[in-house]
Amino acid sequence: MMAVPSSRTPLVAMVGGGQLARMTQQAAIALGQTLRVLAASADEPAAQVTPDVVIGSHTDLEDLRRVAAGAAALTFDHEHVPTDLLEKLVSEGVNVAPPPQALVHAQDKLVMRRRLEALGAPVPRYTGLDSLADLDNADEFVRRLGASNDAPLVVKAARGGYDGRGVRMARDLADAREIAGDYLASGVPVLVEERVEVRRELSALVARSPFGQGAAWPVVETVQRDGICVLVIAPAPQLPEELGSAAQQLALRLAAELGVVGVLAVELFETDAGGLLVNELAMRPHNSGHWTMDGARTSQFEQHLRAVLDYPLGDTDAIAPVTVMANLLGAAQPPVMSVDERLHHLFARMPDARVHLYGKAERPGRKIGHINFVGSDMANLMKLRERAELAAHWLSHGQWTDGWDPHG
Amino acid sequence: MMAVPSSRTPLVAMVGGGQLARMTQQAAIALGQTLRVLAASADEPAAQVTPDVVIGSHTDLEDLRRVAAGAAALTFDHEHVPTDLLEKLVSEGVNVAPPPQALVHAQDKLVMRRRLEALGAPVPRYTGLDSLADLDNADEFVRRLGASNDAPLVVKAARGGYDGRGVRMARDLADAREIAGDYLASGVPVLVEERVEVRRELSALVARSPFGQGAAWPVVETVQRDGICVLVIAPAPQLPEELGSAAQQLALRLAAELGVVGVLAVELFETDAGGLLVNELAMRPHNSGHWTMDGARTSQFEQHLRAVLDYPLGDTDAIAPVTVMANLLGAAQPPVMSVDERLHHLFARMPDARVHLYGKAERPGRKIGHINFVGSDMANLMKLRERAELAAHWLSHGQWTDGWDPHG
Repeated sequence: MMAVPSSRTPLVAMVGGGQLARMTQQAAIALGQTLRVLAASADEPAAQVTPDVVIGSHTDLEDLRRVAAGAAALTFDHEHVPTDLLEKLVSEGVNVAPPPQALVHAQDKLVMRRRLEALGAPVPRYTGLDSLADLDNADEFVRRLGASNDAPLVVKAARGGYDGRGVRMARDLADAREIAGDYLASGVPVLVEERVEVRRELSALVARSPFGQGAAWPVVETVQRDGICVLVIAPAPQLPEELGSAAQQLALRLAAELGVVGVLAVELFETDAGGLLVNELAMRPHNSGHWTMDGARTSQFEQHLRAVLDYPLGDTDAIAPVTVMANLLGAAQPPVMSVDERLHHLFARMPDARVHLYGKAERPGRKIGHINFVGSDMANLMKLRERAELAAHWLSHGQWTDGWDPHG
Repeated sequence: MMAVPSSRTPLVAMVGGGQLARMTQQAAIALGQTLRVLAASADEPAAQVTPDVVIGSHTDLEDLRRVAAGAAALTFDHEHVPTDLLEKLVSEGVNVAPPPQALVHAQDKLVMRRRLEALGAPVPRYTGLDSLADLDNADEFVRRLGASNDAPLVVKAARGGYDGRGVRMARDLADAREIAGDYLASGVPVLVEERVEVRRELSALVARSPFGQGAAWPVVETVQRDGICVLVIAPAPQLPEELGSAAQQLALRLAAELGVVGVLAVELFETDAGGLLVNELAMRPHNSGHWTMDGARTSQFEQHLRAVLDYPLGDTDAIAPVTVMANLLGAAQPPVMSVDERLHHLFARMPDARVHLYGKAERPGRKIGHINFVGSDMANLMKLRERAELAAHWLSHGQWTDGWDPHG
């Protein structure tokens, strides 16, 4: 029998079964690819929607080998795989993307900060504490920060934090030393930094392929509440063109310097003085890029797949003047209505809402989905933003904050 | 342990494991739903990308029961399920959408044509032949068609045809009788119709929910070659507004009159005289609606899920002035390059191509994928159309028709 060529394209392995892997599956379907995920259990968001699932742990070398077997690339839905395991996989011939020497900068805030400083990238003033011994050198501590003893500080665990966890505000130097001591005592290095006066937070999302091609989406504004991103506005409103361009260039340069393969999110502070400071890095599709699913020519999920497989990258243009993304966060009190009923009411009121649900249990504060609203005019941004917040609050809490009564 | 509500929404069962089910899975993922498909084998396009697969036959009642078990709705990727089996399922409490009494109009061209005529919908002049005996009544035959003995005719098998199969052109009445006799002898009723002078073919795509809500996308032009749709232009260029509106109204009325639940495609002829005639009906996501995946606020796949679950329907507006969809058809000679390599070259030349592959073996003439190009200006349609044709030809055949040499 003559072999008939198949329009199936390569197998990509992704470590992690969360919502990022779930949405990557949508992109893999379009490109004819097979996505295999390593999930902790069969009811994780991606495992629900992908036939090729390896149930296992991202800290177990054998499980990592199983998911990587036969894959054209191994990539990530989170940054928690120990670097030594990844280096072992690389030595066995696995195409790890991004490679461990790049990924470490998304795993360890202190490694990242030191590298960025060495590269001349703008970062907040900081000092790094690798061990309890460093804590005793108070003079150096103060000198590096350029701060007085009673200036407020930010203390960050170098590893393991996300969504505001592992980040604590300190009243003054003494308070910071105490908090840092707690982290250091549990073996986690610490980064202490100045509390920057911030106008707003931005995110510069780019992708880079092994060939070296880079592509940048428009820079967005991310709106945080209690350390969690609740809203993204694409593009960032009234961002001076040169500042937007500087942010894109910086992100593309960092992607190249660090050897990133795939999507890189550079979370930035826009300072009161109108400058930029790099806050965090992520080397995977990122919450600040969810707007691209409905608002850009190429979504970050397709782009990530294209990058790790070294395809030429897709067009990053926005398809509309403005897109607003709102995260759905699990309510403190579970709503009485099922999500299904809430969805009915939402669709009845807002036929243009683009809903993305992750199939997760609705625990308090947990990201259970997001909604995109694509707008035809930046002048209507306030209205669009209001609608996005209203829709997200409704889906999360089962209450319209503007007094609608679904059963009225 | 307190039950934590989950953001998973209902289970939808779909009969058929083809590309329509595959693309429905992408929409189901976004809405937090579980899609279960009934596929003939595990390598069918949808079975490759969906964990919940029942392997079986769409003509086997037990298999249909298995796929329907626990589903909020049972729907279709094709129209080949025997009506008596669906009626049995309905009697057992399965929510079949569209219901069999509607679906039969997409299964049997003669039943459809007679019903449309009774409803006063514009259709080509025709005569129906239920058995060989009808063939002998030549006078009635000619009278109904209003044709002379030597006018060319079209002969269609009432059941079982698709993509131009089951449709044959007849030189004259004698030829038509001979062709019809062949179909009738094998037990298939026949529809003989006038050959209409057609300006072009259009498609009016709508959705209808059980509640009775209807929603229409812009009317599109479908370009056929050898009886297969090769290109779709959305919206249909230079379509008079009143004709477009009439086509939408007609499709919405037919959806309501026939009791359709889900997407309904009404394939239309635009006659040389500037009128409309209904050619075919499909009650499922349809090839003429693939442009909605990248060119409309709500894709036909999401809309179909919303309709069969009786959610309020989504916004059907186009997101751009024009979208062109080109089908990828398997080449007569399999290309030397793998689809993967072809994809690399395509992406390098056209970063804005929106590619959708179905994971199918590339047999000659088979639909293996489609490409969308979203344009910013109807004035550039010719260029956009050229690029779509070029891209489709390249991906199908591995040759640029304008002389590019990928290895040059």
